[in-house]
Amino acid sequence: MATDILDVLRTKRDGGVLSDEQIRFFIEGYTEGSIADEQAAALCMAILLRDMGGDELATWTQAMIDSGERLDLSGVGRPTVDKHSTGGVGDKVSLILAPLVAACGAAVPQLSGRGLGHTGGTLDKLEAIAGWRATLANDEMVAQLRDVGAVICAASEALCPADRKLYALRDVTATVEAIPLIASSIMSKKIAEGTSSLVLDVKFGSGAFLPEIDRARQLAETMVGLGQAHGVRTVALLTDMESPLGRAAGNGLEVAESVATLRGEGPADLTELTLALAREMLSLAGLAVDPADALADGRALAVWDEMIRAQGGDPDAPLASAAVQHSVVAPASGYLSRLDARAVGIAVWRLGAGRSRKDDPVSPSAGAVCLRKPGDRVEAGEPVLVLHADDPDRLAPALAALDAGPAIAVAPEPPTPRPLVVDRIA
Amino acid sequence: MATDILDVLRTKRDGGVLSDEQIRFFIEGYTEGSIADEQAAALCMAILLRDMGGDELATWTQAMIDSGERLDLSGVGRPTVDKHSTGGVGDKVSLILAPLVAACGAAVPQLSGRGLGHTGGTLDKLEAIAGWRATLANDEMVAQLRDVGAVICAASEALCPADRKLYALRDVTATVEAIPLIASSIMSKKIAEGTSSLVLDVKFGSGAFLPEIDRARQLAETMVGLGQAHGVRTVALLTDMESPLGRAAGNGLEVAESVATLRGEGPADLTELTLALAREMLSLAGLAVDPADALADGRALAVWDEMIRAQGGDPDAPLASAAVQHSVVAPASGYLSRLDARAVGIAVWRLGAGRSRKDDPVSPSAGAVCLRKPGDRVEAGEPVLVLHADDPDRLAPALAALDAGPAIAVAPEPPTPRPLVVDRIA
Repeated sequence: MATDILDVLRTKRDGGVLSDEQIRFFIEGYTEGSIADEQAAALCMAILLRDMGGDELATWTQAMIDSGERLDLSGVGRPTVDKHSTGGVGDKVSLILAPLVAACGAAVPQLSGRGLGHTGGTLDKLEAIAGWRATLANDEMVAQLRDVGAVICAASEALCPADRKLYALRDVTATVEAIPLIASSIMSKKIAEGTSSLVLDVKFGSGAFLPEIDRARQLAETMVGLGQAHGVRTVALLTDMESPLGRAAGNGLEVAESVATLRGEGPADLTELTLALAREMLSLAGLAVDPADALADGRALAVWDEMIRAQGGDPDAPLASAAVQHSVVAPASGYLSRLDARAVGIAVWRLGAGRSRKDDPVSPSAGAVCLRKPGDRVEAGEPVLVLHADDPDRLAPALAALDAGPAIAVAPEPPTPRPLVVDRIA
Repeated sequence: MATDILDVLRTKRDGGVLSDEQIRFFIEGYTEGSIADEQAAALCMAILLRDMGGDELATWTQAMIDSGERLDLSGVGRPTVDKHSTGGVGDKVSLILAPLVAACGAAVPQLSGRGLGHTGGTLDKLEAIAGWRATLANDEMVAQLRDVGAVICAASEALCPADRKLYALRDVTATVEAIPLIASSIMSKKIAEGTSSLVLDVKFGSGAFLPEIDRARQLAETMVGLGQAHGVRTVALLTDMESPLGRAAGNGLEVAESVATLRGEGPADLTELTLALAREMLSLAGLAVDPADALADGRALAVWDEMIRAQGGDPDAPLASAAVQHSVVAPASGYLSRLDARAVGIAVWRLGAGRSRKDDPVSPSAGAVCLRKPGDRVEAGEPVLVLHADDPDRLAPALAALDAGPAIAVAPEPPTPRPLVVDRIA
């Protein structure tokens, strides 16, 4: 039976279930351009408000994968395992994890994106390193995986072109937050990338994409189900993003903190989460090794150097430093009870580390360093946060983001510690 | 407080109430082009699924009126009163009503549209008359209203440009059926047109735009409220559209039937509905005259001739006739119990009387004539419907539309008569 776009739109608008034929008609038509942006936007809004069932979502995801090429990593010669985070403030885990897990014997094919909004993009961070390039041909990527074991690069234009169009559309139509659309966007790319196993870091809390834990859990369960249905061993950790992860937020500042963590000198929370994710990855890859050893003995750092050099970067080159630094101080003495991730993320974005439009440049040096973390003892007037900017005019809007809320609060008693990893979904 | 399009979209998506500022920001931005079609499509779908309240709708309608010019009919020298129908199969009432009500002393400023879908457009019908032109400048329109009392013409591009864009967008995004969007589209144009009074013919039944009577009633109540809020005296009749109105459907065929009705020789149902609407219009205009007299004494027909000539048409020129005629016969003997308006409408559309795309040409001669109406006694094999086409290849798809259902049914007993006007909303 033939379908048309109005038929597809009416079905979902009226709360019905899209047939396989309708889904494939839409994804193929939108990818090739016979279905217009306004029709796809109306469908995305209808999906957000009407939801999609499990079977619909599986077909939708498969159609997105089929819209482009699917990589074959069988020639890599090691078990492949990847990680995806839903994004957070100061979340530089990918930079550490790829060389760490590679040092333990797996191959990590990290196809990443650039940041849009208040959480940074992995490629933007690595581009703070002199000479490093994000774009690799598929054969270069496979060769690097075989030789180094870790690659972080931009996804090819040929991978999930349907997602590329849909993601840009959702961003301007307030339809980013639909769980089926998030899950299919993430999982179609990871499945098409060819990894055998996948660990998901699904964040909740103020700095996360989905602040409510219930919605984050629903997303995690949906993605784990999709991965397993497509033959990718998938596990998700549900992790707290109420405060920035580690101390640094901003491109070059996060590279520096990643290198420190690879040396075994990283902040406790960042090291803990990285190791927890690494253990899940190695377990899925069938490798019975402790990743803490590879941090302690320098093997992970050695793979980092190789990985950066393989893509033209100089791991020893100094990182750019910011022209202006400004301290934000504790408003009272006591214990730091709040350091709000979302507010810090917006401040860092306004300082120049993030972009508002797809093609905006980002600063390699702008960002923030948290000198104190929640639970730390602070004295009134003592610096809690240092803002870094290339241009002093950027400080005022960043400070305004921190004032709203406010982002920093001090209490007479220490706050109840928040666990970082609150659940595991498999 | 400043707003942006994502803020507007999120508010409606999440079930909130749009502020006056948000509504004006959207309508102005979409009209001028700073808000993209995909953003407007997402908002239309969110409005369809989340609805709009009375205050939102009043502001939305006012913003649509304010997007363009508002006509001033104060120089016409007669009370102005218009009619709008939500559209039906065989609904040629406007053609008869405008000269009839003008003959009774009012001025009827009918700004009309072309058809899209299975119900015909008033302008398409009049264009079956040799020489007649739909486009008038505003001063020509006002002069014709003053001199003749009746004008049926295309709305100027400067009238409600927001509606022009939104209507085209809704048509391709399955968001036509949202009651607030229908009501604001109709009422913004009628209010901007400058009429003092307005009678609405809101149809329900298979051939209507909103087949369910409850939805039609809701639309009628919404539009009457909007008209009154904007100072336009407004009344709605809720009328049955389960079978075609009159006997003819198709552009030239409907002109011929309109002229017959103006001579007092029209089908009973068409004459009844036209007079009911005329009485409402004259009552709103404060004219205590019986329109039946103007039909009987030829005054209405004389105004028709003047109205057609004023726009370059020749009321005496013969109408084009179709190359092919095909009879559809009664399947059994008994009483015609169903002659489905929607199926007849789709058949007539497929015969060439309607268009699928905005710029498609329409045939002046294609259509259908109902020889029998529901309740009539029929004998098996006797013609019930005659299809007219320019091209014999068009018969098969038209017959397929009639077979589905099927459109024609015969029963041993006469069906219960259906009242034509079921309610009056004021």
